Amino acid sequence: MLKNRNILEKPEEEELKARLEAARERLAVQQMQIKEHNLPVFVLVEGFGTAGKGSAIGQIIRNIDPRFFKVVSMDTPTEEELRKPFLYRYFSRIPEAGKFMFLESGWMDEVTKVCLQEKMDEKTYEMRIGSIRRFERQLTDNGYLVVKFFLQISEKEQKKRIDDLLSSIDTSWRVGSNDLWQNKHYGQCVEIFDRYLEETNAPSAPWYIIDAKSKKWAELQMLETLTEGIDIALQNRALAVPLLQNVFPLVKMPRLAEIPLDKAVEEAEYKEELKGYQEHLRELHNRLYRKRVPVIIVYEGWDAAGKGGNIRRITEALDPRGFEVHPIASPEPHEKARHYLWRFWTRLPKTGHIAVYDRSWYGRVMVERLEGFCGENDWKRAYNEINEFEKELSDWGAVIIKFWVQIDKGTQLERFELRQNTPEKQWKITEEDWRNREKWDAYEIAVNEMIQKTSTTYAPWHILESADKKYARIKALQIIVEELEKII
Amino acid sequence: MLKNRNILEKPEEEELKARLEAARERLAVQQMQIKEHNLPVFVLVEGFGTAGKGSAIGQIIRNIDPRFFKVVSMDTPTEEELRKPFLYRYFSRIPEAGKFMFLESGWMDEVTKVCLQEKMDEKTYEMRIGSIRRFERQLTDNGYLVVKFFLQISEKEQKKRIDDLLSSIDTSWRVGSNDLWQNKHYGQCVEIFDRYLEETNAPSAPWYIIDAKSKKWAELQMLETLTEGIDIALQNRALAVPLLQNVFPLVKMPRLAEIPLDKAVEEAEYKEELKGYQEHLRELHNRLYRKRVPVIIVYEGWDAAGKGGNIRRITEALDPRGFEVHPIASPEPHEKARHYLWRFWTRLPKTGHIAVYDRSWYGRVMVERLEGFCGENDWKRAYNEINEFEKELSDWGAVIIKFWVQIDKGTQLERFELRQNTPEKQWKITEEDWRNREKWDAYEIAVNEMIQKTSTTYAPWHILESADKKYARIKALQIIVEELEKII
Repeated sequence: MLKNRNILEKPEEEELKARLEAARERLAVQQMQIKEHNLPVFVLVEGFGTAGKGSAIGQIIRNIDPRFFKVVSMDTPTEEELRKPFLYRYFSRIPEAGKFMFLESGWMDEVTKVCLQEKMDEKTYEMRIGSIRRFERQLTDNGYLVVKFFLQISEKEQKKRIDDLLSSIDTSWRVGSNDLWQNKHYGQCVEIFDRYLEETNAPSAPWYIIDAKSKKWAELQMLETLTEGIDIALQNRALAVPLLQNVFPLVKMPRLAEIPLDKAVEEAEYKEELKGYQEHLRELHNRLYRKRVPVIIVYEGWDAAGKGGNIRRITEALDPRGFEVHPIASPEPHEKARHYLWRFWTRLPKTGHIAVYDRSWYGRVMVERLEGFCGENDWKRAYNEINEFEKELSDWGAVIIKFWVQIDKGTQLERFELRQNTPEKQWKITEEDWRNREKWDAYEIAVNEMIQKTSTTYAPWHILESADKKYARIKALQIIVEELEKII
Repeated sequence: MLKNRNILEKPEEEELKARLEAARERLAVQQMQIKEHNLPVFVLVEGFGTAGKGSAIGQIIRNIDPRFFKVVSMDTPTEEELRKPFLYRYFSRIPEAGKFMFLESGWMDEVTKVCLQEKMDEKTYEMRIGSIRRFERQLTDNGYLVVKFFLQISEKEQKKRIDDLLSSIDTSWRVGSNDLWQNKHYGQCVEIFDRYLEETNAPSAPWYIIDAKSKKWAELQMLETLTEGIDIALQNRALAVPLLQNVFPLVKMPRLAEIPLDKAVEEAEYKEELKGYQEHLRELHNRLYRKRVPVIIVYEGWDAAGKGGNIRRITEALDPRGFEVHPIASPEPHEKARHYLWRFWTRLPKTGHIAVYDRSWYGRVMVERLEGFCGENDWKRAYNEINEFEKELSDWGAVIIKFWVQIDKGTQLERFELRQNTPEKQWKITEEDWRNREKWDAYEIAVNEMIQKTSTTYAPWHILESADKKYARIKALQIIVEELEKII
């Protein structure tokens, strides 16, 4: 795209001024429309060093109310960030509905920089490109406007700018070693950038190459592209999106109705096994901490199935500095204003840590589906989006263990009644639990579909038969120990 | 996608039956909705030989009224088709609004077959992939639903089917040499198919890999995917689409107002040059006929600018068996029901022939823009779509010559009045001409934008200053002769 592109002709000074004026006014009007229509706008500004990325963003935001935008200048990843998946830094910074996020250098810069240092093999590169394409598609599929600019200057122009900056003590600090390196290896940069641009140029999030020789002209190109994009996105709200075929390998799972619930364990055996597995798990936790393996444990199940007690038997065995339990309730307003996976991206463990989710992103295909909190197209698309999300985590090196805690409808009723009739347990039972129980059959359909469609080989569901809670606890511990043993 | 995919589990017989019934009924309802909402549905069925492409289509159409669909089984291209651009066979067969088109094997089969015969170099392959991606995107951007199935069977299953068919004289004719070849080179086929599927798997036109071992199950997968796709497409009518940045090299063009119109030619010189150029052109026409070079000449210009007389001076020099003039008026109903470029794709010359268009696809960004016959997003997108269209023609080997016949507003008025006052010329002037004249300024803006945005290096505009019609005729002949000389 860089090598075979067309440089738009810079208009005359007078026309430039008039169009700039018009575009700025248009953007000022659009910021209110964006707010009103809850459109999130993600603007990625990439380009050559000294091309003026920062100052271009500075010009554009002058026409936006400061409450409506954020600008983030991405540095090289911190130690902390390096212990999260590649996309974490970017997914955690997506804008909320109705607001702008401007990123000065982002995922393109991060990937191409490593390529230019020749520190990335082809396989990793292709994994990164795959991640990025899925990331951008997940955003646009979920109603985000993603506008990607690449600011282009020639080798000569870059050299001139570097020399100008270096000529004064006041500006020389603005020349980074990366700018100097780029200019010496300009041709190589063009090759790497071009390949990246080609491979991530999707119709829903296309690249716009900006001729950045003149600042005003660059600003105008960016403003006109951005305002055009906003107009189109505003027209297309509530877009339904094709359901992509699952391309991840699945494992065969039973239907809930087929699961025998007569499994139980004797008290003596329970105590002994509990002790043995917990000791083993404690020891494994140390090993995975040293080896920096992240572990993700998901609990989903019927109300009163025994999730809480089960989780406690796991965490009892863990060093508190190395794990976290995330109870997941309905999303807060600032979470609702973003992609539904955002609150999970921001709750990922660091490498070497364990995160336990008491309910999870699977709410999308259960409660959100059944209560109509999202559209039909949204939850149908979510199976694939979740498989993609977990693939990202798996590629990062995470062990993913997902439990469905299963009981039958009768057992639930017994436990509900017990809770109701036991004063110290009454807090555990609410009106909502009774309402959910009425929807058991609809939930069962949704849970079956979920288990069938998201049991990937890299993140399969495990069924915990929890008519006997003790049996379920031992089984959970056993599975965790086995899965961790495989890896570390 | 073939190598790393998930085979959906075939449901039990009873569930399969129930779901088939439901999907068939749904499609029967949808055919009326498609009609009502003018949705064109293009279904491409590709896959391994003996996978059952034909019989699957046969099952699906049983639930559609015969007036609403067409099925085309693509053979290897005919001699005639080989003298058209690669996409001609497919673009000419796109469905009209409100109808289905089923293609049994199509552009995938054509490309991969040549690859498997090792008769396509990498560069041609990449050109084909580029063409296909643009083709599919142009369709979906313009409101088409494109559903792509790949019917997959294992090597063993294919072998079994071939043996079964060969075992009886009644069915052995159904085994083609290609089926036998595929089975012997199954692994190689998977490689080639897989690469193709990956590279053309766009979110707006994704691939669906169908497990075709069981016929009923294949039918169900296809029906459910198709009906799902239709529901989504019906929800998303009148979608605005991001404007892609032009990636084709442009040449700098003057604005209409900057063009001096004082150029003229003396009668004697005119006669001599006319004769000379026409003789030269006649000779070139023979050469390009022998060399099979297709030539596309486009005339656009103001009313009364002298297009007709200019065209006549060209065609006078040509062998009538080797050229065609296409006068382009407003589209017929069957043309309006398809992509706006369809009526031009179907009017392309064969190799070795010359096609002259008296008005053209540029109507999209002139009359359709100004009269509101298409939406703003449509005409804005059209610059790129037209550049892509002409790139397709240029890559095919066509010489493309585009003339804008320029006069000023005063000259037009003189000629209108002359026509009005000369009985034998009165047919040439209509009310509409006068109405268009009132919109001169708006047209001038549109024409300037068109000339700036579609003067690619491979298909630039040429201005014919036609205040003196004779000058314009000589200039046109001269440009045609020069352009043809470059090539042949």
